[in-house]
Amino acid sequence: MTDFRSLHRAGAPLILPNAWDVASARMLVAAGFAAVGTTSLGVAAANGLPDGEGATDADALRLTRRITGLPCHVSVDIERGSVGTAVAVAAAGAVGINVEDAMGPVEPQVRLIRAVKLEVPDLFVNARTDTHWQRAGDLAEAVRRVRVYADAGADGVFVPGLRAPADIAEVVRAVDIPVNVLHDPCGPTLAELTALGVRRVSTGSLLFRIALAATVEAARAVRDGTEVRAAGLPAYGEIAAPI
Amino acid sequence: MTDFRSLHRAGAPLILPNAWDVASARMLVAAGFAAVGTTSLGVAAANGLPDGEGATDADALRLTRRITGLPCHVSVDIERGSVGTAVAVAAAGAVGINVEDAMGPVEPQVRLIRAVKLEVPDLFVNARTDTHWQRAGDLAEAVRRVRVYADAGADGVFVPGLRAPADIAEVVRAVDIPVNVLHDPCGPTLAELTALGVRRVSTGSLLFRIALAATVEAARAVRDGTEVRAAGLPAYGEIAAPI
Repeated sequence: MTDFRSLHRAGAPLILPNAWDVASARMLVAAGFAAVGTTSLGVAAANGLPDGEGATDADALRLTRRITGLPCHVSVDIERGSVGTAVAVAAAGAVGINVEDAMGPVEPQVRLIRAVKLEVPDLFVNARTDTHWQRAGDLAEAVRRVRVYADAGADGVFVPGLRAPADIAEVVRAVDIPVNVLHDPCGPTLAELTALGVRRVSTGSLLFRIALAATVEAARAVRDGTEVRAAGLPAYGEIAAPI
Repeated sequence: MTDFRSLHRAGAPLILPNAWDVASARMLVAAGFAAVGTTSLGVAAANGLPDGEGATDADALRLTRRITGLPCHVSVDIERGSVGTAVAVAAAGAVGINVEDAMGPVEPQVRLIRAVKLEVPDLFVNARTDTHWQRAGDLAEAVRRVRVYADAGADGVFVPGLRAPADIAEVVRAVDIPVNVLHDPCGPTLAELTALGVRRVSTGSLLFRIALAATVEAARAVRDGTEVRAAGLPAYGEIAAPI
């Protein structure tokens, strides 16, 4: 299996789909993905917990323990994160983590990155900045932050919500380490992101939300007596065997 | 909220979609379903556990505790089941359970139904027989078993895999209590099931498998650079707020 770090290639970015439970991870691996991330939003919602407040720590760790037995690399979204959680998911077999700054001061994330790289140097630390997350976006601030995180030792940087090609190019130019952007159905195509030098494209909560939309639509169709999808569904053995 | 038992109406069957985590349950309630079941296959697969062997007890109870806070009735699939699990899910706020005979002798399920009805008389016990589950089906045996379970005090009987209209009609005639059949995209329509006297139509693992199929298809589309669904997806607030 190619090293997780080496999968972040300029010209052939890592496509990292995000799972929220064992079944979604298993299906993604079966579909040929060499690495799977987790989505803290998905893990939070699947378990009825708030996201972004550290409430998913236990569930993220539990999920990590269960999916690191799959033949894939696992990178875990630990929200703002802590050294303890980073060490625990690494011990459980994860090869990477995402940490996020939630647009607070950079210092806590800088300290965290340094501490994690001291404790578990091989763990790929993807440092997310939320400059473009649910807001218009502040490119200068994004550039400043990704540089600070790269200098602190991050292995990659992640700017979810970054969408304009010129802005993506500027963030890619700002650091030597891989830049991760979120797949955006309304944003640049994969070919465009590749040409811009993006080295990781992840899906965030998109697959989770698509799964829920499909769930509700099918339930409504059952209720309304309209046609329900029957073709191409995974069989029992594909989803239910223990790992 | 209408009593769970009263929702099992001849002429207007209860449509009971089956959830596997908090998010799927929440979305189904938001879509207007007054009651939600759980799918042990989904709970097992979501947690990387085997189904049908009692391994999901802890996860089923954990899920029950988290979704009984939603404004809906909750019925829990406890696989073959035990009095302890039945009492625990009832204490957690569930109004019903499914137990299954796995085509073993009827006596254990009969004893279980009696014991559960003694301990938690208000809990709706839906007794499943697996005569038509992943096999050709043995109608005479199904009729015999549903009568035995009804006599033992079951509140409803469930014959997943039962599909032929004449067979459904015979099972409905065999007992006075509600008959539950699984929605089958290739079987009778809801209107036909209603006309046959079926009083509960549940979805088993169908929604779960549809969700996984949609997940994998979307991930492949991201990887292949083809169109990914963006419309009609649930927003953050619809899925992520704690209950």
